[in-house]
Amino acid sequence: MFRKLMTFDEAKQVISEQLKPEALGEEEIPLLEAYDRVLRENVVSALDIPPFNRSTVDGYAVKAEDTFGAEENQPAKLTTRGMVSVGEPPKISIGKGEAAEIVTGAPIPEGADAVVMVEDTDSEDAELRVYRAVTRDENVMKRGTDIKKGETVLKAGRVLGASEIGVLAALGLTKVKVFKVPVVAVLSTGAEVTEPGKELPAGKIYDINAYSLSTAVRESGGKPVYLGVVPDDKAELRKALEHALASADMVMTSGGVSVGPKDLTPQIVDSLGEPGLLVCGIAVKPGKPTTIALIGKKPVFSLPGHPTSALLLFHLLARPVIQLMSGRPATEVKTIKALAATRMFSAKGRRTFVMVKLKRDNLDKRVVEPVETGASGAITTLAKADGFVEIPENQQFIDAGEEVVVSLLKGAL
Amino acid sequence: MFRKLMTFDEAKQVISEQLKPEALGEEEIPLLEAYDRVLRENVVSALDIPPFNRSTVDGYAVKAEDTFGAEENQPAKLTTRGMVSVGEPPKISIGKGEAAEIVTGAPIPEGADAVVMVEDTDSEDAELRVYRAVTRDENVMKRGTDIKKGETVLKAGRVLGASEIGVLAALGLTKVKVFKVPVVAVLSTGAEVTEPGKELPAGKIYDINAYSLSTAVRESGGKPVYLGVVPDDKAELRKALEHALASADMVMTSGGVSVGPKDLTPQIVDSLGEPGLLVCGIAVKPGKPTTIALIGKKPVFSLPGHPTSALLLFHLLARPVIQLMSGRPATEVKTIKALAATRMFSAKGRRTFVMVKLKRDNLDKRVVEPVETGASGAITTLAKADGFVEIPENQQFIDAGEEVVVSLLKGAL
Repeated sequence: MFRKLMTFDEAKQVISEQLKPEALGEEEIPLLEAYDRVLRENVVSALDIPPFNRSTVDGYAVKAEDTFGAEENQPAKLTTRGMVSVGEPPKISIGKGEAAEIVTGAPIPEGADAVVMVEDTDSEDAELRVYRAVTRDENVMKRGTDIKKGETVLKAGRVLGASEIGVLAALGLTKVKVFKVPVVAVLSTGAEVTEPGKELPAGKIYDINAYSLSTAVRESGGKPVYLGVVPDDKAELRKALEHALASADMVMTSGGVSVGPKDLTPQIVDSLGEPGLLVCGIAVKPGKPTTIALIGKKPVFSLPGHPTSALLLFHLLARPVIQLMSGRPATEVKTIKALAATRMFSAKGRRTFVMVKLKRDNLDKRVVEPVETGASGAITTLAKADGFVEIPENQQFIDAGEEVVVSLLKGAL
Repeated sequence: MFRKLMTFDEAKQVISEQLKPEALGEEEIPLLEAYDRVLRENVVSALDIPPFNRSTVDGYAVKAEDTFGAEENQPAKLTTRGMVSVGEPPKISIGKGEAAEIVTGAPIPEGADAVVMVEDTDSEDAELRVYRAVTRDENVMKRGTDIKKGETVLKAGRVLGASEIGVLAALGLTKVKVFKVPVVAVLSTGAEVTEPGKELPAGKIYDINAYSLSTAVRESGGKPVYLGVVPDDKAELRKALEHALASADMVMTSGGVSVGPKDLTPQIVDSLGEPGLLVCGIAVKPGKPTTIALIGKKPVFSLPGHPTSALLLFHLLARPVIQLMSGRPATEVKTIKALAATRMFSAKGRRTFVMVKLKRDNLDKRVVEPVETGASGAITTLAKADGFVEIPENQQFIDAGEEVVVSLLKGAL
């Protein structure tokens, strides 16, 4: 097992070149449950839409040539043959000199090729006077004008929202093939944590990470499997990791990866299959002990125990992997610009991420100030941080008043 | 029943002053399922976090005064009394001149009030030499430093993401009180539509709206109940609307609200209870026939039959109501600026919404061009529109090259 820290950019390169996250298989699901899922294949229309020539106005279906020359002072005179209803096949057909009453959306009856608007006519019994000529196809929406049979309507990879699901319904579909949702097992390690809901033993604190990371998995388009806290024991941990790998497409652990004698997770993960550990420590602050492994085709991320660090590293490295595994593009993080309220220091030689809170200063300018992320702010940071500011490896600090780019955590994770 | 068109702003005012949407009741749910739900009440911590004084470093727990005066050349000499493990109550207590080995996160043993870092010491058997003095509380995170018992940690109304769910887990909670999700019954009317999945009878088209609006309800934080297509018959429609009102907190219909003789929906809705119809037609384009009613405490929105118009009016008027009913703030629509690629006309005296597609022009500037929304673009508009541009009632057109604000539909609806 190696212990050389990679740079942040090297770690990202290893993910794209060696972990190579890609979409899992497909499944067919009911269209009504397909919100926010990703289309597996191009959708081709099996029908013309509309499937018949429709009237786009209320009026009279006619043969256009029967109205040629009609004017205000010289109406064309036609014989009304009845009415065409909406939603039914026409029971009438139109011969020379004939017309049929028609409403918007109703099918054009056989023999007719245009519709005269009702305001351009008057009628008495079966006699219809037309005061304005129409051309062929006037006020007619022809079969297939909106979508042609065989046309590709939506492309593979499209994320399904209200519009897309409406389009699929228009084609008569009630099921749709989508990419499978990646299942991500989430577990916490560490002798100092116990699961929420249980009595808190002396000397322990409640585990945060299995809850926050399970939620982050959901936010990223994955399906979390909460496995809770695993006792800090080699055999138990091995059993839990084997179970996690067997029951999920990806595993997310936290805690137990710093340099102490009890940090078993990376060693055990590495022994579970090939190729094993790919990244074993990253030159970032916070998050240095992060390790990344690939067991068969299943990524295993081992994140730090500090809750904010775990969520930050999840956000930076694991979230894009889950997105790609669910057939989505890895989305850009939302960013906004703000002024640094105070000087923010970097950690020497490490890519530094400073958790920040957005505020308005006296002049109503948007500023950011750092939120305590050390040992004494594990939870308050989670509750207060709006995002983070990145300081490159070769920069010592960001000065007060400098403009910074803030990557937003809310709604982005 | 009245038929006077309201302006768009009047309709919004009626919604806020007469419909008065507000959060429904509360329910307690498992914390692991609380993603994207809204906190019902302030959460107050029932415990100090950390619940005990913890070491923030690896080293030796000592009485600070025993190290006073210690220097590189003149170490303080202490006697090691054993080790304090992480996650367990200390089994040792420290007397004058004594020390205990301790790791990060472990509880400070009784008698000790500071921790010397391991790099400032050396030891041989039970003798410990300390080369640097520590002050009282140095390297100690005191009980309650992060969160104090009785402190309000999260406020009512907060939407629960990964961070918030992590905070609640830290308090030991596994359940949380959230606002109920509004249940919205969605049905389509109109003789020309039939439900997807069934054979398409001659003269009909597949219904889009019950699918697209059900999805839009979900996107807005509501729970849709899909009721499909109701036959265009007075008795059937009445029965369906009564059923919808009985089984949901809100009802969303579409179709059957233009001026034709078969447009029964508003009449029937008005007869179902007090106060009945509040808005009966709005001076907007598209979407003029939109009606809004309140039956008891349940809003009923009747949207146009045209799929894009229905979704647009949902977005403009119904979505904020669903958000408020779910305890959320009515979120601002995301907007971006772009240049109009062509002149866009408004409808005289009506607030006009032009559906548009975003593109890049030759100079890589972001431009928008209108998407056909008439009869012949029912589905292609849904598939292609990225958002809409609003033209005020008193403005005739937006000129080509003018900068416009585009309200984005994707991710916003």
